[in-house]
Amino acid sequence: MKVKYKGKIFDCKTIYIESNESGRPVVCMIDQTKLPHKFEIFKCNNYKEICIAIKDMKIRGAPAIGVAGGFGIYLACEEFKNKNFSEFLSMIEKARKEILNTRPTAVDLFNYVDSVYNVIINSTNPIDATENARKQALKLFNENLEICKKIGENGAKIIENINKEEVKILTHCNAGALVGVDYGTALSPIRIAKNNKKIFVYVDETRPRFQGSLTAWELENEGIEYRIIVDNAAGYFMFKKEIDLVITGADRIALNGDTANKIGTYEKALVAYENGIPFYVAAPFSTIDKNCKTGNDIKIEFRDEKEILEFKGRKIFGKNAKAINPAFDITPAKYITGFITEKGIFKPEDIEKFFK
Amino acid sequence: MKVKYKGKIFDCKTIYIESNESGRPVVCMIDQTKLPHKFEIFKCNNYKEICIAIKDMKIRGAPAIGVAGGFGIYLACEEFKNKNFSEFLSMIEKARKEILNTRPTAVDLFNYVDSVYNVIINSTNPIDATENARKQALKLFNENLEICKKIGENGAKIIENINKEEVKILTHCNAGALVGVDYGTALSPIRIAKNNKKIFVYVDETRPRFQGSLTAWELENEGIEYRIIVDNAAGYFMFKKEIDLVITGADRIALNGDTANKIGTYEKALVAYENGIPFYVAAPFSTIDKNCKTGNDIKIEFRDEKEILEFKGRKIFGKNAKAINPAFDITPAKYITGFITEKGIFKPEDIEKFFK
Repeated sequence: MKVKYKGKIFDCKTIYIESNESGRPVVCMIDQTKLPHKFEIFKCNNYKEICIAIKDMKIRGAPAIGVAGGFGIYLACEEFKNKNFSEFLSMIEKARKEILNTRPTAVDLFNYVDSVYNVIINSTNPIDATENARKQALKLFNENLEICKKIGENGAKIIENINKEEVKILTHCNAGALVGVDYGTALSPIRIAKNNKKIFVYVDETRPRFQGSLTAWELENEGIEYRIIVDNAAGYFMFKKEIDLVITGADRIALNGDTANKIGTYEKALVAYENGIPFYVAAPFSTIDKNCKTGNDIKIEFRDEKEILEFKGRKIFGKNAKAINPAFDITPAKYITGFITEKGIFKPEDIEKFFK
Repeated sequence: MKVKYKGKIFDCKTIYIESNESGRPVVCMIDQTKLPHKFEIFKCNNYKEICIAIKDMKIRGAPAIGVAGGFGIYLACEEFKNKNFSEFLSMIEKARKEILNTRPTAVDLFNYVDSVYNVIINSTNPIDATENARKQALKLFNENLEICKKIGENGAKIIENINKEEVKILTHCNAGALVGVDYGTALSPIRIAKNNKKIFVYVDETRPRFQGSLTAWELENEGIEYRIIVDNAAGYFMFKKEIDLVITGADRIALNGDTANKIGTYEKALVAYENGIPFYVAAPFSTIDKNCKTGNDIKIEFRDEKEILEFKGRKIFGKNAKAINPAFDITPAKYITGFITEKGIFKPEDIEKFFK
């Protein structure tokens, strides 16, 4: 993704690996707790620093956390590769547990960490294991990059086919480059289509956590025209037909196409449907949960009421005020025009068929 | 309305008039800039202090501002009643202009102020004019009180007729006692029905200005069970059928029933409609604008982007972030089950008939 910083524009990944002066690997990541106010790279020299980064949400978004976890296991290998193999394995096992405990509900973290862990335990000595871990962690990194790029290429066609000089797109939450290695999901088609089409993005601020601020930061850097709106205002602009297309990400997709995503997505999809505006979900195939037949099988997480009641430690509401905070909602498949995936565009009814 | 303060519960109007030690009238109002964090009464000894109160939004909500304006003209009479009649009239004319300039777009302010002004210019001397102004300002105060109470009585029947032990109601923005003298519009039916029915209120926080904090404060004082939700979450709870009824206020109603209200109302009405949940608008008849045939005739105010981008002077978004801030939207009549007014419940199609 493009980043503007101190008057310069340069390309940056959300997370990447480089070597320090003594040739040791360092995992670098954009510190998302500082965004959008400051741009800082947080550097992890060992797996414990990876744990801190994930726990403190310096890195967020399921795939980005997954890649960080994979790199974390590799850093642990580098730390312990001079021990004997059995000591090495027990240290790696300890590191694995610590990393998985940082955000216990993130399924991507589990998958990525264990993908690297498996090549380690199938190796025969610490040196080989470390080299295999490095390759596997980088493979996952590259795969994530490729999938998001492919989503962008597939989705860009939808935007480019809209017969307007300027295409106006609504997005909700941040499904941008920051949730993965680069490109993002919902923002990937926009990043790619902007080379051929003038684009304007309406950015839902996305209460309670204001993830719209990250989307605005990404678009600002890319030089894409946008305006932040309160979540309440998306209906106004859709009713006025000032939005041509809606693209969001997804947290989990059921086999029938019902989709769990950031709270508020359901309302946006319904308003789009009512106003004849196409509503697309951009997500990697790994977001489809074959254990969920419909949206009813997806459990919704309720988060702390403080996310609503306070802003940076200051109370927004009265001292006795009470809130209730569902973090996601389910958008029924009937309101979804299609899924933009790395394997192409799918209608909701085609997802289940694909697996048969 | 009930107010809890320093462990005591007492009855309080949003605005009222009392005498000081020397027998001079003082206009008192709940200082809404301090709510919900502090309860304070702001006292106006002269019309200039009324102007400050309106300008600084110590009092807000069209009818409450109107009542304040009427009281302001009366206070001006008290100040100048010892002058000769022509001097008196020129001072009153000056006061009138100053009061009307505080919030130039509020139509209620204009109507209330001129209703009092007209009895003054039809009087024959300053003493009579002052007494007539006092009576007229108090008449408007009492009328506002009665209209809101009647809206409550009419709306309470809708709540009481819902065949559930506990009725769950969603409301948007603050259409409570604070926008008038007492009772409010959307909250008035809830205040009255709570004597016969267990009620739970979902309170939309109502970005960008968080007026849900005032609704929560009123409900907390009344001892009515509630939870604040982000505006994004209303859809989740309606989809889950955890809301039985939606009641909002209105800023302006067109003859065909299309209704302008706080941004986000349109989305809530559509989601309610889609889920078979009754959606009522509670408003006095004076909200109907006979010059507007449909919602297309209602102009939407766009407000400063800072309302979105900052919270109490602190930036929420990046320093270059841009926002667009429509303050109201139009809910098409087809999504509105009925209007709760002081003259009874009207279906959208019955409004125009009433005036024929």
